[in-house]
This record gives sequence, C-alpha cells and structure tokens, in this order.
Amino acid sequence: MTDPVNTGADLSRLRELNSLTIVRALREQPPATVTELAKVTGLSRPAVDVIAQELVTGGWATIVEPGASSTVGRPARRYRFRATAGYVLGVDVGGHKVLALLADLDGNVVHTARTAVAAEADPKKRLAALDRVLAACLRETGKSTSDVWALTVGVTGPVDATGKTSLFTPLPGWTDVDLAKHLSDRFTCPVIVENDCKLGALAERWRGAARDADDIVFLQGGMRNGAGLIIDGVLRRGYGGAAGEIGALKAVRWLEAPSHLQRCPGVPETVGPDEAAAWVFNAARDGNRDARTAVRRYVKDLAIGTAALVLTLDPQIVVYGGGFSRSADLVIDPLRQELEKLVLRVPEVRASTLGADGVGLGALRLALNEIDRLLFTAGLSAPVAPVRT
Amino acid sequence: MTDPVNTGADLSRLRELNSLTIVRALREQPPATVTELAKVTGLSRPAVDVIAQELVTGGWATIVEPGASSTVGRPARRYRFRATAGYVLGVDVGGHKVLALLADLDGNVVHTARTAVAAEADPKKRLAALDRVLAACLRETGKSTSDVWALTVGVTGPVDATGKTSLFTPLPGWTDVDLAKHLSDRFTCPVIVENDCKLGALAERWRGAARDADDIVFLQGGMRNGAGLIIDGVLRRGYGGAAGEIGALKAVRWLEAPSHLQRCPGVPETVGPDEAAAWVFNAARDGNRDARTAVRRYVKDLAIGTAALVLTLDPQIVVYGGGFSRSADLVIDPLRQELEKLVLRVPEVRASTLGADGVGLGALRLALNEIDRLLFTAGLSAPVAPVRT
Repeated sequence: MTDPVNTGADLSRLRELNSLTIVRALREQPPATVTELAKVTGLSRPAVDVIAQELVTGGWATIVEPGASSTVGRPARRYRFRATAGYVLGVDVGGHKVLALLADLDGNVVHTARTAVAAEADPKKRLAALDRVLAACLRETGKSTSDVWALTVGVTGPVDATGKTSLFTPLPGWTDVDLAKHLSDRFTCPVIVENDCKLGALAERWRGAARDADDIVFLQGGMRNGAGLIIDGVLRRGYGGAAGEIGALKAVRWLEAPSHLQRCPGVPETVGPDEAAAWVFNAARDGNRDARTAVRRYVKDLAIGTAALVLTLDPQIVVYGGGFSRSADLVIDPLRQELEKLVLRVPEVRASTLGADGVGLGALRLALNEIDRLLFTAGLSAPVAPVRT
Repeated sequence: MTDPVNTGADLSRLRELNSLTIVRALREQPPATVTELAKVTGLSRPAVDVIAQELVTGGWATIVEPGASSTVGRPARRYRFRATAGYVLGVDVGGHKVLALLADLDGNVVHTARTAVAAEADPKKRLAALDRVLAACLRETGKSTSDVWALTVGVTGPVDATGKTSLFTPLPGWTDVDLAKHLSDRFTCPVIVENDCKLGALAERWRGAARDADDIVFLQGGMRNGAGLIIDGVLRRGYGGAAGEIGALKAVRWLEAPSHLQRCPGVPETVGPDEAAAWVFNAARDGNRDARTAVRRYVKDLAIGTAALVLTLDPQIVVYGGGFSRSADLVIDPLRQELEKLVLRVPEVRASTLGADGVGLGALRLALNEIDRLLFTAGLSAPVAPVRT
C-alpha cells in the first residue's frame, strides 16, 4: 500500500464512476467529441478518450465519423449513446382501451399499438387485451421480450408497494388483479405498475407542458378527476402510493364536478354517458346557454379540489390534462380565475400538450428512470436487458 | 500524465471528499476509533489514520484518549467531532413571545432565552425584543456574534424567497418587515427566515415524535391551524414558500375549527380570549358537557383540513403539535377516528413531544442543515464561522 489515501479499491471505483459519468453525459446530449465530453464531465481529455473507446467496444456507444466539413483541419470524431441497445415498453391500461408504446433507450417511440376494451370488461378480458397489444408491439418491430429492458404499466387507482390497486379502482374486478405477477410471467426485465395520473405528471415534465418546472400539480380531467404531483423535480407517490387522491374528500367537490356536465339539460338521448361531456363542451363552444352553465359549474367545483392541492403544495405550475383536456380552451382561464379567489399564491395554469398519449409516455419515462437507477446505483456491466431481481 | 484515468486534480478532489466523509461520519456518531471510522466510511484504515490526524490539527476533531480499560492490550484512541468549534442560533418569533436557543454544532442546546411580547406589539417593539433575546443568549454564554455559524428565525405566515411574509402574517405590521436584513446588520453568518410550522415539522423529525419517518404531515394546532410537510425525508417549502397553507381554503373548515373552542358556552368572563381554548380543554377533561361538545366539533373540523393534506400527500405519520398539543390526549384518538371516515389510507396520528420548544428546535436544525450544506458542497476549509455570501 504505497499511498495510504488512495487504495486500489478506491481507484477501481473511481474508474467505474468515470465510465458511468461518460455514459450519462452521452445519454443527455447529441453526439459529442472527446473535448466536449471532457468539458461536460470535468474529466481530463486523455481519460475521456480511453473510456469512450472502451464504451464503443462494450456496446454502450457508437462512433459518428466526421462528414465533409468546411472547417480547416481534420474534424474530430463524435461519440453517440447506442440507444438501440435496448427498448422499453410504456403501457396505459384504461377504462376503454389498452395503449402500448415501444421506445429505444433515448425514449424515441418506435411503435404504438392500441386496442379498445369495453368499460365493463372483466379482468380476464382486459389482461388478454394487454397481452395482445404487447405481443403486437414486439411482433411488428421484430423484437423479442429479451430486447425489453424495462416495462411500466399505468392503471387507475392508487398503486401499493406490491403493484396492486387494493385501496380503490374503478376497473371492474381489478382490485384483486396481480398485474406485476401477470407481466413477470411474460417478461424477465423489471416490471413497474403505477397510477395513471402519476404517469401523466411525469410525461408533462418530460415532453409536455411542464418541461421548465420542478413543482407541478398535474390534473387528470375526466369523469373521475385525478392528480399527480412532482415536487422538487421528483414524482411523489406518498408513503403507501396514494398521493394525489384529493378527489376522495367530499368537501372539495371533485366527485361532484363532472356530474354537472353529465346532467346538463339538452344532451341528446343518442349521446351515451361516456360522450356526454364532450357533447357539452362542444355545445358550450357553440354558445349553448345550458352547456355554458354546466361548464362553469364544472370548473367552479374542479377549482376547489385544485385549490386544496395548490394550497398544500404551492406548485409553480398546474397542468390540466386527461380526456377533458381536449376542451382545455374552455377550462384554463376560468380555472385560473377561480384559483385567484381561493389560494394565497396563484400558480401558472397550462393545458396538457400530450392528449391521449400522456399516460403511456409517462410509463416510458418511468421505465427509463428504472434503467438509469440500475445504471447509476447497481451498475449495469454490459448493455443487455437487466434481469428482475 | 502517467495515468490517463486518474489525474492529479482527480486525486486532490478524492482526498478532499474523503476528509469530508470522515467529518460527516464523526458528526453522526459517538467518538470512534480509526477501525470504526474505516468500517463506516468504506475507506482504508491507513487513509482514515492520516485524515483523522489532519482533522485534529485543523481544529475539526479532538482526540479522546482511552481511559482505564478491562480489555487486554492497549485500547485505541478515539476521535470526536469538535462540536464546540461553533454555535448556531434557533429563534421563534411568535405572537406572544420571542424564544432563542443557542446550540453547539452537534445541536446540544447550551442556553435558552425567552421574553414575552404583547400580541399587539408593533414591528419595532417585536424586533427590539428579538435583539434583547439574542444579546442575552450570547452574553450569558460568553459568546460573540463571530461564534455563531448560522442563525434561523421562525415566523408565522408563508415566507418568500427574500425572507419576508409578504403574502400573509397575523403579526401586526409584519408584512413589510425585512427580518433577514435586520439580522444581517447584526450577524455576518448565514441568516435564514422560515415559516414556524415548517420548523415545527423539522423538529419533530429531528428530536420529536416522527424520528422514524420520512413522510410527515405536522399540524400546528392553535387559534390558527398550520401545517409543515416533510416528503421523502426533506422539508418541502413549495415554489414560493407557501406549502402547507391549506387553512386558507374555507371548504376544509380550518378557519372555523378553533372558534368552536372560543365560543364554548360557560367560559368565565375572567378568562381572556387567548386562554379560552385551554379552559375548554380542561373543562372537557373534567367532564363538562358543553366543553366536550366544543372539543368534538373542533376535532371534526380539524379533521377535514387534515384529510385534505393526507389525501394529497399520503404521509406515514401525522403529528399534532403547536400550543393546543398540551391537550393532545383529547385530540389524537378522535382525530384518527374522523380520518378513518375521510381518507383512503389512514396514517398514524401522534402527539408532538416537543411542546413550546418545537419551532426553536426546528430553527436550530435548519441552521445546522445550512452548515452541512456549506461543508459538503461549497466546502468549509477551516472550522470558523462561514461568512454570508
């Protein structure tokens, strides 16, 4: 032991950390030269040079050879994270549909599959639809389950530590479904089940209306209002996975809010209960007086539950998403005006930009987070799908 | 450059990190031997030996020589963090009092000073009381302002980024007070102003009823209810410092709750408004029927706002603190029963164990956090009071 401060074990760990630092830097930016990587990571150029070549050999990175260039001298080669080393699946199991997105490790969506499911479908039928959609995603992209590094499924209702919605779910018979086990029988990679509103919140921060914020209340507007919370940049689940369930408190009127739309006078009999809200929003846009009253009452009640979230958390931004967000043009301004009457500090109120893909995109993001976690804590020694432990 | 991975700069940084690791390890445990420190930190024994001696020379640590021992062989010397290298001040500026605690860098309270202030006192009088209490703390311990490494003051109302309670405060004329500036004219160390309920939450996790939890809703029970939130182990302030202000929402009835106590029939005329609640709690404990009804109504309304916090955050623990927590025996069980009717997952409900010192202790903790932050990010090169930047 020649240097008492710096043992062999310390050096080996340092080298591993430096490799991970470069992988992370590559993931977060366009193809970069050794000089650029040295600047971003604070490591020396010679160190980065050695590590980058090791990462190419190991399958973590590819070389982008310089093309024709107008600059004088030989342009430097660039390194790119090999995003196609693996794939992630993000799935939205909703009341009326199952939607699956397949994306590479940079989060680029390479395939989307979707199938309709009846609202009253029993768990067996809904799980069969899920299996069909996942199989279609793999088949149509020529991938197999071993290409999938992580898989996240969003469901309605608070999700506990075992991946079950045991406290509450509106999906028929779903309380007893062990979704994590069902998927673990089909995939060897990490499988995560998460609440749909929480995934919606993640998606808005990743690729939606809240990319610039760390403190976000995401509202899932629909026949059941829900919420997902990002605080100091991190999705918060609560101790038992039930954060954001303010809708259960009668006093804040979220249970009541959507019924103003459903009970609006003048909705034609031919319009089913699932489409009534859309009809009312359209009629309100056309100036129908009853419809405008119904929307006003909806927003007034929506604002009370939203105010409870805002007063509790003091977020920078409230994002209005979910199925009703197609009609955000009728909701955003009145919602802000109601909040001005109810809260101490009024946050920005924005409309979701992701529409029906929000939950699936959030599921992708959570799957990618899991890969990052494995990469930067447990360590992934080679670029192959991690096996669930 | 003989080793491309491990430059001189990397090594110097590694040595500094190792020193800080030892300082942190020393702060978090009783006096420790080199062998024990090596085990805790994962560093080699020779490395720890060198660093520990450097820390003694530098004034960060002291040596505890082994006393008479029954074990065979020479017992090893131990190292202790030199907690008296500096001090922190934690102050509670309340409606009726100013309380200041002086503690060493381990958080051991070495002196307490307190003075009564009239509820209707104007800012000038309240600031004069603050100055007197701080001066007393230093004078009676033989310390000067240069011994103070950080200072935190708790006040009522949401505190913004400038340390002002500009949105709301019940203290007369206090909205315009620049407390941070007032203190910065007297102290050169970092000065932090924070909301009293947030400090109460910190204190319960540090030395109170919630030491075992990372997800905590702290209720400040009093003539104004307040809340402080710890989520995933960290105090959350909100984007503008106004997190926890659920009491402002009429629908959740916190504004109403304490008035049931104040309006209770039978409170003698000789009992002033500030003491009415204490009288009612005592009468209820003695079986007075009106008083029991008033307490029941108080808890029922308290529970609705608490349910809004619990449904939003899904905490592990709710701690009932503040002035009314002296009567927690009458509140905890009924509050839990009300929550069982209102929320999806019922958290544990516990009484504060800190009483009137909670806010001051939380202020100490926040001051110590600031020192840790400087120590482990900016780096404190020598054990002397940091100068505010």
